[in-house]
Amino acid sequence: MESGKLIVVIPVLDNAHRQRIRSAAAAHGREVLFFESVKEALPALRDAEIVFGQPAELASNAPRMKWLCTPSAGVDQFMGEKVFASPDAVLSNSSGAYGVTIAEHTIMLLLSLFRRRLDYDDILSRREWRRDLPVKSIRNGRFVLAGTGDIGQETALRLRAFGPRSVLGVNRSGQNPENRFDRVVPIRDWESFLPEADALILSLPGTPETRHLLGEKQLSLLPDGAAVINVGRGSVIDQPALEKELRAGRLCAALDVFEEEPLPQDHSLWTCPNLLITPHTAGNMTLPWTVERIVDLFLEDLENYCAGRPLSRRVDLRKGY
Amino acid sequence: MESGKLIVVIPVLDNAHRQRIRSAAAAHGREVLFFESVKEALPALRDAEIVFGQPAELASNAPRMKWLCTPSAGVDQFMGEKVFASPDAVLSNSSGAYGVTIAEHTIMLLLSLFRRRLDYDDILSRREWRRDLPVKSIRNGRFVLAGTGDIGQETALRLRAFGPRSVLGVNRSGQNPENRFDRVVPIRDWESFLPEADALILSLPGTPETRHLLGEKQLSLLPDGAAVINVGRGSVIDQPALEKELRAGRLCAALDVFEEEPLPQDHSLWTCPNLLITPHTAGNMTLPWTVERIVDLFLEDLENYCAGRPLSRRVDLRKGY
Repeated sequence: MESGKLIVVIPVLDNAHRQRIRSAAAAHGREVLFFESVKEALPALRDAEIVFGQPAELASNAPRMKWLCTPSAGVDQFMGEKVFASPDAVLSNSSGAYGVTIAEHTIMLLLSLFRRRLDYDDILSRREWRRDLPVKSIRNGRFVLAGTGDIGQETALRLRAFGPRSVLGVNRSGQNPENRFDRVVPIRDWESFLPEADALILSLPGTPETRHLLGEKQLSLLPDGAAVINVGRGSVIDQPALEKELRAGRLCAALDVFEEEPLPQDHSLWTCPNLLITPHTAGNMTLPWTVERIVDLFLEDLENYCAGRPLSRRVDLRKGY
Repeated sequence: MESGKLIVVIPVLDNAHRQRIRSAAAAHGREVLFFESVKEALPALRDAEIVFGQPAELASNAPRMKWLCTPSAGVDQFMGEKVFASPDAVLSNSSGAYGVTIAEHTIMLLLSLFRRRLDYDDILSRREWRRDLPVKSIRNGRFVLAGTGDIGQETALRLRAFGPRSVLGVNRSGQNPENRFDRVVPIRDWESFLPEADALILSLPGTPETRHLLGEKQLSLLPDGAAVINVGRGSVIDQPALEKELRAGRLCAALDVFEEEPLPQDHSLWTCPNLLITPHTAGNMTLPWTVERIVDLFLEDLENYCAGRPLSRRVDLRKGY
């Protein structure tokens, strides 16, 4: 019996990565084909059994596919009807590859807000030498992390080293993974945490359940001067409601994700005060460690797949993660 | 016998701080006078026994002073001839109050450089949505910390939480304080560490011994793309030599301190590429925790002083720390 083809569409892979994938596949008698784009891959997708790549168009063009592994952690793009041409395909993601890089981005954003980067950018653009703006510290600070997966856990671990007063978690189950958090509540109870947050850090997936979770009411519960950081999905925040608080100077924020990306050039957030913008750079494949890890995780699940075992990182498309 | 007066010139102290100092002094029968500036304090300085404050003009106007405690960690301003009007005055500093805030600033600067803030600032100023610049991580990175005092130790502690490959220290003695470093070498041997540094973090005092320690030769030993961060004293770096490397695009840097401060408005560093500037904001008294700690440390030494014991934070003016 001939094993079906493995198609890989991840342009950032280098020769060493490709060789690792090729060897692992060969051990199970599988051929691997590498492509730089969906377009290039189209003919081969027709009889692909396994696809390792993105974007979602891969799924709609692979009618015999049994497994698609995306190098992303987020799977929102796969959640529509008709995304999968193959009726019995399963999806897995690369959750676990982005925590390190996103946690570093998050700590950078948090410290930038706490240490008044926005105001100092302004001061330094005039070559002034003011030094007296009050700053805040992670030391003795109170943090609420909505999202306690890989990103939330890696962020909590790093925050601890700075001596915070509290690191609280919010997730679906209310369970405390690896005991990384002082306390965890399920999403339905999360509002009780908000009045005590010096910073609220969001790393939630984009699902119907999380849509606009941080709305006008929840924002109003945050204390004056609190920082909001979103490195998960833009849909979690009611953007106009946040913008209102930022323009009023009551809160500050750092957003890496938005309701619409790229953020349209004429969007009012571009000129919003008290807001730090990064263009969805918290967790992409620009860090070699991340790419290495994406390949590791795929090869782990390739072994599972070939042995007929369940995939470690299978995604439940109804939940969205 | 009447005890001599204690004069305090630290404008940022609030009423609670003042009350703590007043109570502690009263327990030893000492009067405390608070002033907002040297000018205001001048008449009282004439017969002051203890001065808690800055700048150095306090010392030159207090002929009977026995002890001056500066709220700074650095003491370069006290190192000239003729700074002290009183021949038998001792100096203590507030080393131990700034490690927390400077370590946070350092981690912010490091992550900002690693995550390409300078390039992304440029991209975002045009409202572009590029996301593909290669970034670096503290994870598996190699760090050399020249200066292993309070700042170096607090920075090493935080770096550890990010999973670095190595955290090496450089100091006068070659000893490893609190075992916070993987290895420590004395300054004379430090060049052996430079070729392996993804980032070099300087928190050295400004002394004749440290002047231009990082010169053309040492800079040339750093690997391509290495980051230089200085949160100690500007005199430690040969600025023109660094600027040359930055303009050549071989290194990147974040400087909080400079050979001349304020950095003159027409200085070429203002337009230097690959350089992040902060206006000596890493460690000042803008963080409440720092001010609290400065008062704690002073009161600790006030007890020592009143009991006739040696001061814990006495500075050796010949060494400069």
